[in-house]
Amino acid sequence: MPRATGVRGFLERLDRGPVIGDGGFVFALEKRGYVEAGPWTPEAVIEHPEAVKQLHREFLRAGADVCQAFTFYASEDKLKNRGHSAGSHGVKGINQAACDIVKEVTYPEGGLVAGGVSQTPSYITTRDKALVQAEVRKQCEIFKKNEVDLMICEYYEHVEEAEWHVEAVKDFMPGTPVCASLCINEDTDVHGVPTGECGVKLARAGADVIGINCHYDPFRCLDAVKKMIKNVKAAGFDKVHFMIQPLAFMTPDASVQGFIDLPEFPFALEPRICTRFEMQRYAREAYEAGIRFIGGCCGFEPYHIRALSEELSAERGGFEPASGMIGWGKCLEKHTKPWVRARASKEYWQNLKPGTGRPHSSSFSKCDQWGITAGHELMSQHEEATGDEALKKALEFKKRMENVEIIINA
Amino acid sequence: MPRATGVRGFLERLDRGPVIGDGGFVFALEKRGYVEAGPWTPEAVIEHPEAVKQLHREFLRAGADVCQAFTFYASEDKLKNRGHSAGSHGVKGINQAACDIVKEVTYPEGGLVAGGVSQTPSYITTRDKALVQAEVRKQCEIFKKNEVDLMICEYYEHVEEAEWHVEAVKDFMPGTPVCASLCINEDTDVHGVPTGECGVKLARAGADVIGINCHYDPFRCLDAVKKMIKNVKAAGFDKVHFMIQPLAFMTPDASVQGFIDLPEFPFALEPRICTRFEMQRYAREAYEAGIRFIGGCCGFEPYHIRALSEELSAERGGFEPASGMIGWGKCLEKHTKPWVRARASKEYWQNLKPGTGRPHSSSFSKCDQWGITAGHELMSQHEEATGDEALKKALEFKKRMENVEIIINA
Amino acid sequence: MPRATGVRGFLERLDRGPVIGDGGFVFALEKRGYVEAGPWTPEAVIEHPEAVKQLHREFLRAGADVCQAFTFYASEDKLKNRGHSAGSHGVKGINQAACDIVKEVTYPEGGLVAGGVSQTPSYITTRDKALVQAEVRKQCEIFKKNEVDLMICEYYEHVEEAEWHVEAVKDFMPGTPVCASLCINEDTDVHGVPTGECGVKLARAGADVIGINCHYDPFRCLDAVKKMIKNVKAAGFDKVHFMIQPLAFMTPDASVQGFIDLPEFPFALEPRICTRFEMQRYAREAYEAGIRFIGGCCGFEPYHIRALSEELSAERGGFEPASGMIGWGKCLEKHTKPWVRARASKEYWQNLKPGTGRPHSSSFSKCDQWGITAGHELMSQHEEATGDEALKKALEFKKRMENVEIIINA
Amino acid sequence: MPRATGVRGFLERLDRGPVIGDGGFVFALEKRGYVEAGPWTPEAVIEHPEAVKQLHREFLRAGADVCQAFTFYASEDKLKNRGHSAGSHGVKGINQAACDIVKEVTYPEGGLVAGGVSQTPSYITTRDKALVQAEVRKQCEIFKKNEVDLMICEYYEHVEEAEWHVEAVKDFMPGTPVCASLCINEDTDVHGVPTGECGVKLARAGADVIGINCHYDPFRCLDAVKKMIKNVKAAGFDKVHFMIQPLAFMTPDASVQGFIDLPEFPFALEPRICTRFEMQRYAREAYEAGIRFIGGCCGFEPYHIRALSEELSAERGGFEPASGMIGWGKCLEKHTKPWVRARASKEYWQNLKPGTGRPHSSSFSKCDQWGITAGHELMSQHEEATGDEALKKALEFKKRMENVEIIINA
Repeated sequence: MPRATGVRGFLERLDRGPVIGDGGFVFALEKRGYVEAGPWTPEAVIEHPEAVKQLHREFLRAGADVCQAFTFYASEDKLKNRGHSAGSHGVKGINQAACDIVKEVTYPEGGLVAGGVSQTPSYITTRDKALVQAEVRKQCEIFKKNEVDLMICEYYEHVEEAEWHVEAVKDFMPGTPVCASLCINEDTDVHGVPTGECGVKLARAGADVIGINCHYDPFRCLDAVKKMIKNVKAAGFDKVHFMIQPLAFMTPDASVQGFIDLPEFPFALEPRICTRFEMQRYAREAYEAGIRFIGGCCGFEPYHIRALSEELSAERGGFEPASGMIGWGKCLEKHTKPWVRARASKEYWQNLKPGTGRPHSSSFSKCDQWGITAGHELMSQHEEATGDEALKKALEFKKRMENVEIIINA
Repeated sequence: MPRATGVRGFLERLDRGPVIGDGGFVFALEKRGYVEAGPWTPEAVIEHPEAVKQLHREFLRAGADVCQAFTFYASEDKLKNRGHSAGSHGVKGINQAACDIVKEVTYPEGGLVAGGVSQTPSYITTRDKALVQAEVRKQCEIFKKNEVDLMICEYYEHVEEAEWHVEAVKDFMPGTPVCASLCINEDTDVHGVPTGECGVKLARAGADVIGINCHYDPFRCLDAVKKMIKNVKAAGFDKVHFMIQPLAFMTPDASVQGFIDLPEFPFALEPRICTRFEMQRYAREAYEAGIRFIGGCCGFEPYHIRALSEELSAERGGFEPASGMIGWGKCLEKHTKPWVRARASKEYWQNLKPGTGRPHSSSFSKCDQWGITAGHELMSQHEEATGDEALKKALEFKKRMENVEIIINA
Repeated sequence: MPRATGVRGFLERLDRGPVIGDGGFVFALEKRGYVEAGPWTPEAVIEHPEAVKQLHREFLRAGADVCQAFTFYASEDKLKNRGHSAGSHGVKGINQAACDIVKEVTYPEGGLVAGGVSQTPSYITTRDKALVQAEVRKQCEIFKKNEVDLMICEYYEHVEEAEWHVEAVKDFMPGTPVCASLCINEDTDVHGVPTGECGVKLARAGADVIGINCHYDPFRCLDAVKKMIKNVKAAGFDKVHFMIQPLAFMTPDASVQGFIDLPEFPFALEPRICTRFEMQRYAREAYEAGIRFIGGCCGFEPYHIRALSEELSAERGGFEPASGMIGWGKCLEKHTKPWVRARASKEYWQNLKPGTGRPHSSSFSKCDQWGITAGHELMSQHEEATGDEALKKALEFKKRMENVEIIINA
Repeated sequence: MPRATGVRGFLERLDRGPVIGDGGFVFALEKRGYVEAGPWTPEAVIEHPEAVKQLHREFLRAGADVCQAFTFYASEDKLKNRGHSAGSHGVKGINQAACDIVKEVTYPEGGLVAGGVSQTPSYITTRDKALVQAEVRKQCEIFKKNEVDLMICEYYEHVEEAEWHVEAVKDFMPGTPVCASLCINEDTDVHGVPTGECGVKLARAGADVIGINCHYDPFRCLDAVKKMIKNVKAAGFDKVHFMIQPLAFMTPDASVQGFIDLPEFPFALEPRICTRFEMQRYAREAYEAGIRFIGGCCGFEPYHIRALSEELSAERGGFEPASGMIGWGKCLEKHTKPWVRARASKEYWQNLKPGTGRPHSSSFSKCDQWGITAGHELMSQHEEATGDEALKKALEFKKRMENVEIIINA
């Protein structure tokens, strides 16, 4: 059961076999009562460190090799957004607290610590490369000081912004491996750049590990990463590794902005939650597709990460999570009811199409399609006065949005 | 936000207004990695106290007024069952550890502590009242010593066994309020005693609070408790209170043994998980039906209990949980996407029939119906030799069960 | 393939084995373009006799033993309703034309001819037994003159009205066997008389054959007839036979007025149409329940009746319909695609849960529940002026109906 | 209500506005008892002319402008296939009978008569152009003699075969307009030729009207025709018209061979049947896409064609079908129940997602994917002996097909 700690370096571990990531923190901690839905900010690292620590502990116990400091959305403009109180803690205070927590729990277990940056309001409102990269560097200061094992640039809808971030992190934190993942689907980013081509752009920008996170279910994310792999390999980047950190929600019907467009986001996604056996299938397919950094994002609970570890136990040298579903369901042999004991096999669970218990629900939803995801027009700031044509466009759009106010940052 | 702690006594609190319970521990801690599915035993109170403590903390933070010591299935015969390692800790060690944890976390927050007993293998194998009640008293020793605020006798399929337990607890712990809940549906217990009539039997046995827990979704449990209320009131028990602790899984299609009969139990129940708005509806309907002790069982996460607290905030004197979905969805007003902000109302969420994202799933499942729930025939121990007729029955049954071995305890 | 014509009498045929009925005409002919949805009147017997004749021919060819003259809703007040043109033909003209058509086609094939009466507006508006029975006799004149082989009193929501009709027909057409079927579900008629008890009332009124038609799917109708059988037998009516003529639409979610309450009625019922294999299962279960007159109502197409004939071929002395699915699917052995040939077995089709191809549909619908089915209050005619209390009730009801006008006859 | 008969010519009518086709005969007549599922041959034109005549009459009455002689699969090798009795009538006898029937009914109503040819076993077994075209000419002899108004070359999975047929018909029947439709989806034909490109090939072969029929639902067929329109216009064929004759079954989940791959084909497709309002939407979208010959194929009943006529009434000069749903649902104003009258609007029905009444069904099915649709390898006849490599392939394939025999013609 000991973690494979002989090799310290993240990239060396990827060369040797699959590396398991952790799950997303904002959704998990919102359910536990420590994150507010809407702002999704990480002030819990200061206000409730024991809750954050416990979640890290659980992901590690489930077999995660990499733990990411809980600093999501911890940029200054986000924390201050709309009168939200989190701003008082300050970016540096929050990020240092997050690093303290994750290091305390992760290192004794032989895990690696990741820092992270993600898309910024500055990009869609200014399109100013120098400004955006300055913001990135500001966020990296704490991570550099804490000597994190790797950096994850994640959750970009615009491949161009991801490229800028990767370049900035590579430049500011030389020697630190950099992962880059987009939250786009198997077709294109929100500007129409094909997903496979996005992969090549990230490789050119210097990313060591490339892939997809959030917004779609494991199987749509897999389709997207496969396209990246194909193009990146064809472009000659032989040493690049690939990563995947999907939702734990099924989203066959999600449109261009993923699960955010679904009418169930964020408070009625329950029927879409993946089972652990769907996660095992995902882990197997990801591994077979050549992906080596395999983890999760929003919706993942510790038992989902455990399912990944169990499925890829042999590929990780026999490592097994500390607790769980021994033998992919064999633990049910100890159940008191004979008909439940009869379910003690992987085959039973993998072939089951789970009933939903929801006779008034349909399987697909109609997405909100406001079509403003690319963001450069209505959602960006303009210094110049609004001209006639722009006004007309905004009004038409407003009508389409049924009188809901339009705010600057997407 | 302070809990309504002016009144210490459980029954007095029920007289004043709704009292919120916590959720089930075995399912929640299995997902977090601290309980093994199958045995479902509580050795985590000794092996991982921080994980148990954290879950109590979260339910309290979500607004629970009553926290139950995590001692489920902690009877000696269960812990030793099938070579499971938990037995080495001993019943007393486990129960004392559980009481230590729950008291440490609950009392500073003004909550009440509950002890609990549940159905025993002894009942279906012996039908010996003296023996069964002796077992109950053994379990109660630790709870009596720890001066718990109330006792919950829960999870009975046989109303007769529940009656015996209630009598024994009332006798052994005089002055301690006793709750009694069955895990049966709106029709009958597994011996065909109508649900309403079961309520009257529990009242006659001396239970102070009567109701339903586990096995079915909130709305089927509500139907069952309503039948109890009707009969119990008609029988003249004016001071009895009512309770409900349902699953957080939708089970319109579950048969006589509830969710255990569903082919999805226990590893593919995800699509059935209730949303927080379904929980709000449940809390409202329970309150309006006259039920005063309102909580949850398997599948409940802290955010489900939070939904109960939010819905009944006014009825509890304005008490609000420490964190959460301010204003039943209003927190979404702070979301960055305008179309998500447009969902910031209770009405939106209450009218949504959540899509399942599962086009290969049906809404109903076909239950395993092995028909051995009542247990007195094939599942009980007999001292006498098996006669011809009994043998014939067992063989016919075995055939029906498709060659799966029959074990004694149901 | 010859029909079992040795025995002329309807009741004698029932004594010998199953008798197959035909399907409903208004839905089938509406789809073909000869009946208008809404009024549902039978003027096609005069305006398009070839279309009516062809449908009779097809049901006969599918194996029907009994063909019913197409006179549905052919009472004078219905034909004249709301400016509908059918009235000009007159009740007598329509009924005689219907008899001419059915006799011409049915007798050469050895089939039996049924006349029919059904619920009248007079009942709910007057509750005047003498008046209602006078109307029934008026309708029976043509049937008596044409010497039909049996009379079917059908489609009653009020068992009392059915009793009055049965008495009147028995009295007016002595010697003619009388069938009586209600369009109620497995619980009660719309006045709360339990379904089983309704059966006894019909037996007491003199009905020779008792059962259920329309409003619910085959399996709910089966449940209802089974309750009638149980009570009627318990009441000592040993010679009574039982009948069933359900919808060909699945209605697990229909409420008190059956499929009329479903939001899909009448133009979006397609996904609910039964397959031929569901019909075979229905025929088998009906026969095993002791029902001997087995047919269909709205939604039945000739191939549905054919499925009944095929399933009960052995029980009818080897009779097989003239054309169809030889051997319950064996005809697929002649298909060109090998994977379709692989489906050439009854077992394949009976185990298939057909996919709906409708990812945006749920399985259950929310019924319109206007609660005015019993009809005696708001829906009846009053000679006296409307008092205050009645006015208040009507206004409250109107509000509940969201401003839709209230018309007298239900 | 008179048909727009001022203009005789089919192409002139298309130039003026939409022309409505009829529905498929084999599925409709199978349900009525006159076609055997499996062989799907048209011997009913000789054995039961009144049934065929009646169906033509109904489609005309529903508003069809073009009626196709019922000669489907009436090639000599098909009729003799596997001991099926239809062969004794002979191709010429059947085709002449079909022409007699359709002309008798169609011309008095001002409709046009179409002859038709479709894919032949000869193509996939020989790939011999001269041979295939000789077969086509043989089939056309009767149509030429009967001076049909147009020819429909339909139901090809291989665009190459369609091209050969179009060339042969244009050559043999000069002056007769030729329609060509493939039964492929929005991606490619079974050889991987993109659907848009298939359109161009048909235009080059000389087809006057180009499109899609059968195998997929209206909306997937629309997607396919739209791709053809785009490419054909881009290739400069300005005078070509477009056609569409989809299934009346919803097939979002159908794979490369369309509904034949669905496990429900052909006996459990009921839940997939389109409603009339789905047909209205289809008609509108087809018209707006520039398609002018709009009809149906398998699954269409007269009321489906009526829905097309009603939707496009204004575009056809106010023509309305003889009977039906006056005003797209307004006829319900005459219904007796007030809550049904409340449904008397097009808007109600167009927004309804019909419930399926099938809680044990999923919305998507898993297709049979035997992957032998292209047919040139395993399914074709070879004169030469089977070599080692071919044998190995066949055995592997056989294993995949789970021991079902492989037959020559697809």
